[in-house]
Amino acid sequence: MKDFIRIIAVIISAIFLIVNVPLQLVLLFDEPVELTAIKIIITLILLYDFIENLKAYRHIRARASEYASGNSGFRERFLLFADAVAIIPFDIILFYNPLALIKLIKIFRAADYLRLLRVKLLRGADYFFLALLVLYIPLLSHIFACGWLVLETDYKHADDLTKYLNGLYWSVQTLATVGYGDHPSKTNAQIIYNIVVMLFGVGTYGWILGNVANILSKRDPAKMHYMDNMSRLRAIVRNRGLSDELQNKIREYYEYVWENRLGGFEEEKFLTGLPQGLRSEAEMELKKHLIEKISLINHGGEDFIKAVALYLHHVIYTPEEYIFRAGDTGREMFFLIRGRLEVLDKDGRHLAYMSDGDFFGEIALFEGHIRSATVKSVSYSELYVLDQERFNQALAAHPDIGDKFRETALERMKNK
Amino acid sequence: MKDFIRIIAVIISAIFLIVNVPLQLVLLFDEPVELTAIKIIITLILLYDFIENLKAYRHIRARASEYASGNSGFRERFLLFADAVAIIPFDIILFYNPLALIKLIKIFRAADYLRLLRVKLLRGADYFFLALLVLYIPLLSHIFACGWLVLETDYKHADDLTKYLNGLYWSVQTLATVGYGDHPSKTNAQIIYNIVVMLFGVGTYGWILGNVANILSKRDPAKMHYMDNMSRLRAIVRNRGLSDELQNKIREYYEYVWENRLGGFEEEKFLTGLPQGLRSEAEMELKKHLIEKISLINHGGEDFIKAVALYLHHVIYTPEEYIFRAGDTGREMFFLIRGRLEVLDKDGRHLAYMSDGDFFGEIALFEGHIRSATVKSVSYSELYVLDQERFNQALAAHPDIGDKFRETALERMKNK
Amino acid sequence: MKDFIRIIAVIISAIFLIVNVPLQLVLLFDEPVELTAIKIIITLILLYDFIENLKAYRHIRARASEYASGNSGFRERFLLFADAVAIIPFDIILFYNPLALIKLIKIFRAADYLRLLRVKLLRGADYFFLALLVLYIPLLSHIFACGWLVLETDYKHADDLTKYLNGLYWSVQTLATVGYGDHPSKTNAQIIYNIVVMLFGVGTYGWILGNVANILSKRDPAKMHYMDNMSRLRAIVRNRGLSDELQNKIREYYEYVWENRLGGFEEEKFLTGLPQGLRSEAEMELKKHLIEKISLINHGGEDFIKAVALYLHHVIYTPEEYIFRAGDTGREMFFLIRGRLEVLDKDGRHLAYMSDGDFFGEIALFEGHIRSATVKSVSYSELYVLDQERFNQALAAHPDIGDKFRETALERMKNK
Amino acid sequence: MKDFIRIIAVIISAIFLIVNVPLQLVLLFDEPVELTAIKIIITLILLYDFIENLKAYRHIRARASEYASGNSGFRERFLLFADAVAIIPFDIILFYNPLALIKLIKIFRAADYLRLLRVKLLRGADYFFLALLVLYIPLLSHIFACGWLVLETDYKHADDLTKYLNGLYWSVQTLATVGYGDHPSKTNAQIIYNIVVMLFGVGTYGWILGNVANILSKRDPAKMHYMDNMSRLRAIVRNRGLSDELQNKIREYYEYVWENRLGGFEEEKFLTGLPQGLRSEAEMELKKHLIEKISLINHGGEDFIKAVALYLHHVIYTPEEYIFRAGDTGREMFFLIRGRLEVLDKDGRHLAYMSDGDFFGEIALFEGHIRSATVKSVSYSELYVLDQERFNQALAAHPDIGDKFRETALERMKNK
Repeated sequence: MKDFIRIIAVIISAIFLIVNVPLQLVLLFDEPVELTAIKIIITLILLYDFIENLKAYRHIRARASEYASGNSGFRERFLLFADAVAIIPFDIILFYNPLALIKLIKIFRAADYLRLLRVKLLRGADYFFLALLVLYIPLLSHIFACGWLVLETDYKHADDLTKYLNGLYWSVQTLATVGYGDHPSKTNAQIIYNIVVMLFGVGTYGWILGNVANILSKRDPAKMHYMDNMSRLRAIVRNRGLSDELQNKIREYYEYVWENRLGGFEEEKFLTGLPQGLRSEAEMELKKHLIEKISLINHGGEDFIKAVALYLHHVIYTPEEYIFRAGDTGREMFFLIRGRLEVLDKDGRHLAYMSDGDFFGEIALFEGHIRSATVKSVSYSELYVLDQERFNQALAAHPDIGDKFRETALERMKNK
Repeated sequence: MKDFIRIIAVIISAIFLIVNVPLQLVLLFDEPVELTAIKIIITLILLYDFIENLKAYRHIRARASEYASGNSGFRERFLLFADAVAIIPFDIILFYNPLALIKLIKIFRAADYLRLLRVKLLRGADYFFLALLVLYIPLLSHIFACGWLVLETDYKHADDLTKYLNGLYWSVQTLATVGYGDHPSKTNAQIIYNIVVMLFGVGTYGWILGNVANILSKRDPAKMHYMDNMSRLRAIVRNRGLSDELQNKIREYYEYVWENRLGGFEEEKFLTGLPQGLRSEAEMELKKHLIEKISLINHGGEDFIKAVALYLHHVIYTPEEYIFRAGDTGREMFFLIRGRLEVLDKDGRHLAYMSDGDFFGEIALFEGHIRSATVKSVSYSELYVLDQERFNQALAAHPDIGDKFRETALERMKNK
Repeated sequence: MKDFIRIIAVIISAIFLIVNVPLQLVLLFDEPVELTAIKIIITLILLYDFIENLKAYRHIRARASEYASGNSGFRERFLLFADAVAIIPFDIILFYNPLALIKLIKIFRAADYLRLLRVKLLRGADYFFLALLVLYIPLLSHIFACGWLVLETDYKHADDLTKYLNGLYWSVQTLATVGYGDHPSKTNAQIIYNIVVMLFGVGTYGWILGNVANILSKRDPAKMHYMDNMSRLRAIVRNRGLSDELQNKIREYYEYVWENRLGGFEEEKFLTGLPQGLRSEAEMELKKHLIEKISLINHGGEDFIKAVALYLHHVIYTPEEYIFRAGDTGREMFFLIRGRLEVLDKDGRHLAYMSDGDFFGEIALFEGHIRSATVKSVSYSELYVLDQERFNQALAAHPDIGDKFRETALERMKNK
Repeated sequence: MKDFIRIIAVIISAIFLIVNVPLQLVLLFDEPVELTAIKIIITLILLYDFIENLKAYRHIRARASEYASGNSGFRERFLLFADAVAIIPFDIILFYNPLALIKLIKIFRAADYLRLLRVKLLRGADYFFLALLVLYIPLLSHIFACGWLVLETDYKHADDLTKYLNGLYWSVQTLATVGYGDHPSKTNAQIIYNIVVMLFGVGTYGWILGNVANILSKRDPAKMHYMDNMSRLRAIVRNRGLSDELQNKIREYYEYVWENRLGGFEEEKFLTGLPQGLRSEAEMELKKHLIEKISLINHGGEDFIKAVALYLHHVIYTPEEYIFRAGDTGREMFFLIRGRLEVLDKDGRHLAYMSDGDFFGEIALFEGHIRSATVKSVSYSELYVLDQERFNQALAAHPDIGDKFRETALERMKNK
């Protein structure tokens, strides 16, 4: 937390330096006392940051003997050097001296912090990065505007604000390729500067916009998944034709999946990519609100729960769909997470309703079983399915639990 | 349907507000009585919309006790607030008062409706969204033009149309980065406004164009599928060489697939992604025009049909291709959906033609069978194939149907 | 071929109309007799095209009773109408009359022909389409330039060329968003026209450039495959380290694959997507230069060859790699397509070289076999592998061929 | 190496020609003696290059009788012709004569060299190509600027530098679509030139920027892999919720994978795409630092090591995770590459630590084995796993090694 505040303070300080140092050099205005105060505070922040980074660097070097770290060592040393240079108060001592620009070297450390923040932040990281990119264009425009003011001669006698605004106006219209042309370059120095800004800046501008578009497009995989499925549905309707009723059913299904954030493909891919240990922890956490309700599985102890969690398969039934019918053979048991099921006897007579947390069909885990009743979905229903084979795999890895488990289950069966 | 009309009316009203409110504030023209009438109608529409949304909100809140709804509650409340504010007739009572801009808050509700419409619409949704995007740029230009007119001083004595057109001319040339520069910003206020428009607007403009390109490129998966295959074919011809005859055959095959909208990969992926119940319904609907013709399968009842529909595999034969030859062993039966087949005896003599709806090879479903005749495709032919194994899977899930089915089939065989 | 010439002639005629009709209307120049001659020729071409299309339409309508064709019927009728209108010689009879613009309706037919050409062309289709896109921008600029000339007043007394060039200069700088601003719009009509051009044209321009980029990037899948593999190799070298020798070996392997256009992934995907019949024809054609050399397979007849061609698996051995060693058990036979192999005895003594068209290891197709010699790759060698299991599948579908085949092979073995 | 220097020298010479030849033609300045010296050196370099390429061409033609090389022969001859033309010292003999432009034909050879360099370079190839693209824009601007100077009349009496800078200023602002408009085209010749530059140049400019963006985005697959996983994690956290502890664990895992450049998916895909021989060499090299430590495997000889290397599967355990527990049955052995493991007895008492290079569980390779101890990961640990089945496959291909191997292993077991 302390580190987090320091990082934010350093980033804000760096932005202040970028804005203030070139501006003061170009406009040569009298420094109000409040500005001097801010500069002193910023220098103190940078000093504190340097000390902390030095400590961290020594700590890393001590560990570095164990692992070779290659060229990252150079990067770390350069950043430390930048930290050290930035604390020299050029901008306080040397008025109107280009040497003060050296302090801007701190930008590299700030950029490193931004990278760190982006990685560490989980909620809101994309918005944070978007904000940064959006901030980047005005900062770039500001720096180019200051450069323009150095060479500009038309606004010699204008007030500072007018001067600066015209500089910014010029740089923004150049970077955005609008190019009104109402501030044309005349001297050779101006022309050279202008060419450099166009060559360098225009590409940067396009690069930033591309980045923003990229982030926006990747922001919400669940929404993209939904949109893609809708456009596939549209293609099928257009090309092949489906009844309106079925179209609505499919659309409602995907809306249900989306609104309840059921993840889908991308989530599964992510989980599969994790090493076994992390994966079973993640699966268990995502499923824990259910598993806690199932005494059957809880008997097995935490390790066993983890093993079973991997094998619980998530399925969705739409309203009026049959889970199974009386007389079918079945080899799976079911846990109802959310929704409402109806149990019917062989002749279709209502027996009971089931709701969140209920489970059924457990005998099928021990032997193939003829279903004695029909189970039908009343609303959208989410279930976990555990099939015999997978369950046996889980038991095989925990042989001591098997017998106890079987006993408990069979006892339940008798009582039922 | 009533809801649909309301939604469209609200969207049109919001567009009217966006166009009219800033324009009237900037140009200060005398309001003709027709405009006042329109404003009153729009206020009534917004009032009706507010009441409907309030009802819907209460209904949702009543249900919300069951499921936690998180931050969508805040969004709903904000939209209701926007609805409420927008019905206050600022634009009728307060002439020439910036307070009237508050009514534009209704844009958020209109945007929400647009999102809804896009999702609900199946046919033409892409065109609808394209139209929106295309509309978005002029609206944005309009708003920026109105802002420019507030600050503009050169056109003080021009008539309203000239004034407005020049404003629009300025804003369009800025947003599109054309930037002729014939309406340069002079005062500091103008410059600041101009900079803001460039920073904000240029990105937006690029973003919209990117969106349009994206939608256009995703519009027709069947066409893309065709185009991709053509370019793969071209690469093979260029790199490896294929006889002209075979090139044409392959090209014609893909043309046939495209023109008959046979779907292909994307469609299959979509169907596989659906839950089992929906999937078999969709498969059945896509295949129903065929299945209805097959008494063999219709004997099994609707559930059985659904189960079999999943296992019917779609294949295409090109002209002069052999489905099977006399003497081959076979384990599949075939249903001819479209096209023309020729039946030949062992020695290649013509026996018969088959056309749409005919089926053959059904004995192979019960036991491996030596084909007694040769079947050959005359035109492009689409067939459904049902293999023995899959068919038995379907029967296993419906054991009571098995025997009856077998009987019927064997009887047919004898009569044949 | 006749159709091809007609199509090209119509496209060229349409381009002529696009260029000439608006230009003549705007510049009002005296028509030289050569131009009149060209116009008459073009009208004759359009007449001929109308007649041909009418014939084709009637033919299609006759067939259309068999298959329902939906909205493509409307499109066909509209194009016929366009054909009919375009043959009316407005541009010859009515000098300087905007009615002549009606002839431009022929553009729709030309666009349809272009679409057709692009699809039908296999070699050079991408270049053809690129040329079109590149042509499209000047044509668009030309049309917008003509519109500008109608409204322009500054160049009243200039000669026609100067007038036209200034119009084109204006339209190109607007569409490309360069916007120098040296031809500013002044009257309201000019401003409205300018706004429309910017709103419509700028998007089109971006869209065309995007299309060009897209085509260029998809042009050569084989090259992309090579480049992708190189960049993956680079990533591995950078992150994990590989000896220079091995880097070179891998790079040379991919260069070999690329230079010999061995296709790779994309080709395989394409072939797998074809229906079985076409696929085996394509496979056979790609492999025919080899298969023709193998009397062993040629004994089986053409159908058998097709079946086997599907199962020949293509592999590449790098120099100094072992195909197998004496004492290994093997179940595959090999056909050397290109390259040079060395045969060694158990003790590594040279026995023989093999070159293009040789095959070996064929006894392994009938029973598992201890390899009696070592075979080693001397240069880059391409081989087809046929494994026992796949070979038996091919035989199972052609049981009559089996025995004859076995005999021939065993006989060869004895003689060897 | 000699070739490398020659290639670089030719590329630099070509750049010099592009810059110098048009500039001298346009500005007509007096040639200083240093420039003449440089021109002579460059002509010598081009002469040397021509001779070398001629030798190489003859060598290729000699080999070409073996393989048909199609149209690449034409390309090679054209490049040789370019080489020959470029050595004629037009630019030295003919002052101020447009004929000197012919020398620029050498650009084609230089472009060919650049393509070659890009492919051959492994480290830094992307940076090299980026540098080229960035260089390309100024060169293009330079050439267009020279063209502009030919037609320009306003700067007749200005000094050379001012003239040239204004030309460059014009061409850069046009290519970048900034278009200030302070150097408007007036004569018809200027307007035509300007239109051509806009039509040709603007597309090129956009194409280059797109290329740069593309390269930047593909630069580091390992980083992209990391970033993608982070954004998937974010989506899951936002939609489904995970405890902060588990979020951190997963993030740390991916950081570990990234920082240690463990490759992941892309690397595996690359290796799988190689032919078997190269693949096992690459796998062995990537794993050699480990395999060298394992006397068990080293006993088998190099071929055997290669075979086993393919079957070593890389896994990562997070801190506190169990590799196996006492009482489990196991069929794999493990090699600890990096990290620290703790061995515990059945009752959880500490027995020993294991560190880099240790291996355990080897008896499981010969028969299913009840694990007699528990092994737990203390830090992040990377292990190679070798399972029984895969190991037996490797042994089956090298039957002679089997017994010796078994003996050694069993002996080790007794001594343990």
